[in-house]
Amino acid sequence: MKNVSIESDYIEGVVSSINPLDEKAMQQARERQDSLTKPRGSLGRLEELSIQVAGIMGSMPSIESKAVFTLAGDHGVVEEGVSAYPQEVTGQMVMNFLNGGAAINVLASEAGARSIVVDMGIKADIDHPELVDMSLGAGTDNMAEGRAMSREKAVKAVESGIKIFEEEYNKDGIDLVAIGDMGIGNTTPSSALISCFTGSDVERVTDRGTGVDDEGYEKKVETIIRALEINDPNPDDPLDVLSKVGGFEIGGMAGVALAAASNNVPVVVDGFISGAAALLAYEIEPEIENYLIASHNSVESGHAVTLNHIGLVELVDFDMRLGEGTGAALTMPVIQSACRVLTDMMTFEEAKVSDRD
Amino acid sequence: MKNVSIESDYIEGVVSSINPLDEKAMQQARERQDSLTKPRGSLGRLEELSIQVAGIMGSMPSIESKAVFTLAGDHGVVEEGVSAYPQEVTGQMVMNFLNGGAAINVLASEAGARSIVVDMGIKADIDHPELVDMSLGAGTDNMAEGRAMSREKAVKAVESGIKIFEEEYNKDGIDLVAIGDMGIGNTTPSSALISCFTGSDVERVTDRGTGVDDEGYEKKVETIIRALEINDPNPDDPLDVLSKVGGFEIGGMAGVALAAASNNVPVVVDGFISGAAALLAYEIEPEIENYLIASHNSVESGHAVTLNHIGLVELVDFDMRLGEGTGAALTMPVIQSACRVLTDMMTFEEAKVSDRD
Repeated sequence: MKNVSIESDYIEGVVSSINPLDEKAMQQARERQDSLTKPRGSLGRLEELSIQVAGIMGSMPSIESKAVFTLAGDHGVVEEGVSAYPQEVTGQMVMNFLNGGAAINVLASEAGARSIVVDMGIKADIDHPELVDMSLGAGTDNMAEGRAMSREKAVKAVESGIKIFEEEYNKDGIDLVAIGDMGIGNTTPSSALISCFTGSDVERVTDRGTGVDDEGYEKKVETIIRALEINDPNPDDPLDVLSKVGGFEIGGMAGVALAAASNNVPVVVDGFISGAAALLAYEIEPEIENYLIASHNSVESGHAVTLNHIGLVELVDFDMRLGEGTGAALTMPVIQSACRVLTDMMTFEEAKVSDRD
Repeated sequence: MKNVSIESDYIEGVVSSINPLDEKAMQQARERQDSLTKPRGSLGRLEELSIQVAGIMGSMPSIESKAVFTLAGDHGVVEEGVSAYPQEVTGQMVMNFLNGGAAINVLASEAGARSIVVDMGIKADIDHPELVDMSLGAGTDNMAEGRAMSREKAVKAVESGIKIFEEEYNKDGIDLVAIGDMGIGNTTPSSALISCFTGSDVERVTDRGTGVDDEGYEKKVETIIRALEINDPNPDDPLDVLSKVGGFEIGGMAGVALAAASNNVPVVVDGFISGAAALLAYEIEPEIENYLIASHNSVESGHAVTLNHIGLVELVDFDMRLGEGTGAALTMPVIQSACRVLTDMMTFEEAKVSDRD
């Protein structure tokens, strides 16, 4: 953990129990991979994935229970005109998730994963038995005019993420988790946060989001630059950055990731906003890097900057830019397959296959 | 079809029923993608895949029944010392497939696909109720000393592939098929075939296979150059190329691909040897291009040449080089997910979500 105050015993407890990967389990996985009936190394990235997951779990990996958390939040900064869609879409899409009609429902179902939808602070008032209510208010404040949220709420956002992971983990178990987002306007705080943490120019890490035109893009970049100037977030103090230019769902996703890592559960990162949350978690505790699996390279240009900064390499590059956890859910079967190859294939000896000379 | 004789009414009948994709179904798929609750185009490659499969099937795509064909053959050219593994491994691995211990068993199972193992002509004598026996002999002849097989056997290899597809298709139905290979030494004929069809230098399309050393690599390149010189295959006559420098399983996989396309079934191409078979099918009937989906970019450098020549772009790049159909099986869930997004998501109107202005 960085040498800054988190002001939360709850978060500090979680962070302090994120350990280095289990080298012994990784060595056992590596040796077993080399004994299986295939030329050594011939399954490439799948072998690496299986070894990483073994290191995370501290044993031969087994993935049975999968969950995709989709965290929703609204953003005061939309009043600057930074998004192509109206703000009401956040709540409408949350209803769509709950009714099973969105892309994440289809992709989580195909992956055999539970879809958990969380209100981290949206404007709409939704009453639904399946919605996990962690609302911190009706959206953040406009970061172009002042801080997005109080420091207390920033702490609470991360704590809420930890809490929802732990409740689900204790209830039905989780062997693999994905973090996804919903929130009209949330590429804007994500760009601000990534620019602040990585030191990259705002233009470099800002793209079209859901599809703003040239004028909208200019406005978006100006807005982010203004938000960073007015708020002057301290990159060495992750919760300062979250509170000044972040979002409720971004803090929440970071909390989910931290809680997962502290419970030896691999975290599948989705696209740009999920990446910003992973970066926030990484700034709180760099050790989390080893627990992260980057699912895809988003169309949003800033995502590659984020992955590079953390030291991750994406699994696929499908020109996706939807969020919700869709890219992460799509690659869950790949990760599961990688682990099953390690545990279920026969060795040269077992199968009585001649090894090379 | 190219203007050359195939000398088989059976093959010609199949080839003549491979039609251009259904433009109307593709247009309907495109329009539906644009009406679904996501920013237009935000699922990138998944949207393209779903539109391609709609064009292949001539309707909204539905993938229920999946099959991976793993075709095995032995190669006389191994006596030149072109492989790192002994020839007996072909039969041993076929037994491993039948016993469920190989990578393709695990990956096909994870993809929910049936694994069908075919003896196209291996040296070992295997008696197993699950093995489909299409043997054309105890391996090909050494192509460095003369043609690998007679023209009659080349025709028969393609016909056999058609037959095994059609039998399985008529029995249990197939909505998505993968073509995979097993055969010690078979990167050598694949390189020869790819060099012949694409006009690329032998060195450019020859790599390490299961892992030969520098000396083995030199020997492999020399052997392929010699085989091409001695046999002088005519690139405008695909069955001449197959008979002179091919393999039984390569001809068989091309037959499976042609039969699948003629039945409006998408074909998932695996790696280097599967790619050589897809290229052979493409040289017989270029229209098959639209029915092919390239699963991954193999470590074998010649695979990228093949994909580029046909006009395919791989889905993933995981540094794999195993064959058996493993890369193809791994990406079947991605293709299925792409189709389910198209058919199962709600539209903006159905979900009552506001569209952009």
